[in-house]
Amino acid sequence: MTTMPMQTHQPQRNWALTSVSADAVVQATGAQQRRAIAKSITLLESTRADHRVQADELLTALLPHTGKSFRLGISGVPGVGKSTFIEVLGLYLIGQGHRVAVLTIDPSSTVSGGSILGDKTRMEKLSVHEHAYIRPSPSSGTLGGVAEKTREAMLVCEAASYDVVIVETVGVGQSETAVANMTDMFVLMQLPNAGDDLQAIKKGVMELADLVVINKADIDPHAATRAQAQITSSLRLLGLHGNPEHAHHNEAIWHPKVIQISALKGQGVETFWASVQHFKALQTQSGNFAARRQQQSLAWMWERIDAGLKQAFRQHPQVQALLPQLTQAVLEGRMAASTAARNLLSAQINRA
Amino acid sequence: MTTMPMQTHQPQRNWALTSVSADAVVQATGAQQRRAIAKSITLLESTRADHRVQADELLTALLPHTGKSFRLGISGVPGVGKSTFIEVLGLYLIGQGHRVAVLTIDPSSTVSGGSILGDKTRMEKLSVHEHAYIRPSPSSGTLGGVAEKTREAMLVCEAASYDVVIVETVGVGQSETAVANMTDMFVLMQLPNAGDDLQAIKKGVMELADLVVINKADIDPHAATRAQAQITSSLRLLGLHGNPEHAHHNEAIWHPKVIQISALKGQGVETFWASVQHFKALQTQSGNFAARRQQQSLAWMWERIDAGLKQAFRQHPQVQALLPQLTQAVLEGRMAASTAARNLLSAQINRA
Repeated sequence: MTTMPMQTHQPQRNWALTSVSADAVVQATGAQQRRAIAKSITLLESTRADHRVQADELLTALLPHTGKSFRLGISGVPGVGKSTFIEVLGLYLIGQGHRVAVLTIDPSSTVSGGSILGDKTRMEKLSVHEHAYIRPSPSSGTLGGVAEKTREAMLVCEAASYDVVIVETVGVGQSETAVANMTDMFVLMQLPNAGDDLQAIKKGVMELADLVVINKADIDPHAATRAQAQITSSLRLLGLHGNPEHAHHNEAIWHPKVIQISALKGQGVETFWASVQHFKALQTQSGNFAARRQQQSLAWMWERIDAGLKQAFRQHPQVQALLPQLTQAVLEGRMAASTAARNLLSAQINRA
Repeated sequence: MTTMPMQTHQPQRNWALTSVSADAVVQATGAQQRRAIAKSITLLESTRADHRVQADELLTALLPHTGKSFRLGISGVPGVGKSTFIEVLGLYLIGQGHRVAVLTIDPSSTVSGGSILGDKTRMEKLSVHEHAYIRPSPSSGTLGGVAEKTREAMLVCEAASYDVVIVETVGVGQSETAVANMTDMFVLMQLPNAGDDLQAIKKGVMELADLVVINKADIDPHAATRAQAQITSSLRLLGLHGNPEHAHHNEAIWHPKVIQISALKGQGVETFWASVQHFKALQTQSGNFAARRQQQSLAWMWERIDAGLKQAFRQHPQVQALLPQLTQAVLEGRMAASTAARNLLSAQINRA
């Protein structure tokens, strides 16, 4: 049977929405639910305009079922042992009756197409467990775009009743800030190396940490203890006054802890989770838990607006026509930078 | 004689350009030049659209005469002794044959209308010297707007042959970053108090410093020496790797120094200026001097574009109509932040 002309006018969105229903994400179980989650996230990651409309409708339908998970950010440089730790932690949590989703923001994957973090086989047992869902990093787009897709994927996982969502990232670029800004608690993993913590301070990552975990503590217990003292001291100094610009814990309620673990030997996971539970309880009692999420949502909205405004500006034909020569004039000192900015802004408004 | 109707149609811009000519700024001397500078800066600070057109023409006419000064940023908390130091330094430089302009970015003046820094009488001798020009902070607008006016005022001063332009700011908010991003060298003034440097590290200001000056060293020499050792150590640690996102010195060429002075007693000013000259020579030889200025110009252009895009967005009637309800929906968890962002961006494009 050939396709009728009328059918080609049938809106794509109706068809696609049927194929990825919010109900399937929320109510299905097992393999059926996994397929619905995977389809949903693929839809969210699509750059096609009609897909984006469907994706927004899907998100809105899912939203009442979201927000009930604990969102845990985990960051650390390559080699710190994130995968090993998340595997051990994830299996421990499943043993406690939780359902665990692991999402990833890997800035390197947007550059190379490859991925430091995306390989599911890094977490052999967790990745095949029926109560775990592991999704590698979106592999294209700016960091802001990747972070947006990951935030949305987090909502899908929450709607599918995953009650612990782990967002991991590697210590590269601004990805730690992105993860800290979408999670209820931000954990920084460190090696017991002298100076490791100074890099984290300098990059502004230490300041984001609600909890610092020194991994591989069993290899050199003395170094680990020195690192623990050093980082504790740094955190105390950094915390003297809260930084209102960051979506932080309130120093009056929680002072970031430093603990030692050995993920490879499975040591310290219970202590870690107890610290997380303690933090969560204090944040919830104080109202910071809800306040941090609200602040994150608004900041996220404005971040995406900013990104959208810049993108529209850079894609505007008049701007594209003028930008090279005005940039050159600014670099050669023939035009003041502010004058060039005004000219370019006018070019966008007086559109061709 | 009455004004002819035709004359009322004469473009305002021609009249105003005659009244503030680039030539008067560049070629006049003494009181005549001072008046031209003051008129130019007033024109640059005007928010009227027709004034802005004139201001851009004036800037473009002045531009070939700009860029030949050394741009020196000086920051420090209230009470550190900035005015006393700049007075002593300015008079020293004039004694060496320089012409010195002092501009100010005072974030408090945009809030209170008053000013921590704007009072010319703080620098009694310098402010009346014929080879000095002192201009208080623009007293309205956002920090970005104030910074833009100050950058433009700097160009006017350069065109008027001031060969040392000092831009001072108080250690509040993001103004230090703004000053560091418009100067060839950024100097941080500190008191010999324990912990003063930690606040600067935490705020990310220490990282911006090309030179740290410990003032009031004579009051407690031991404390000053301790502070010098502490800050030197911090700078070494912070400088282990250059941060490519900041318009910095290159650590391979210049490692930030820490010196002790007593501005009140006039001690250390020659040492200070020798350090500045050394820095300038190294920066020039390496090409960093020119590269830093080019990078600052481009960053400035994009900063003003971003500010303009955001302003136009927030002022758009459709956005203003939708923003409260969408913000509320995001806060209450009824709409995903990214969906709200897309709706608002669409509202601006599909203008009423």
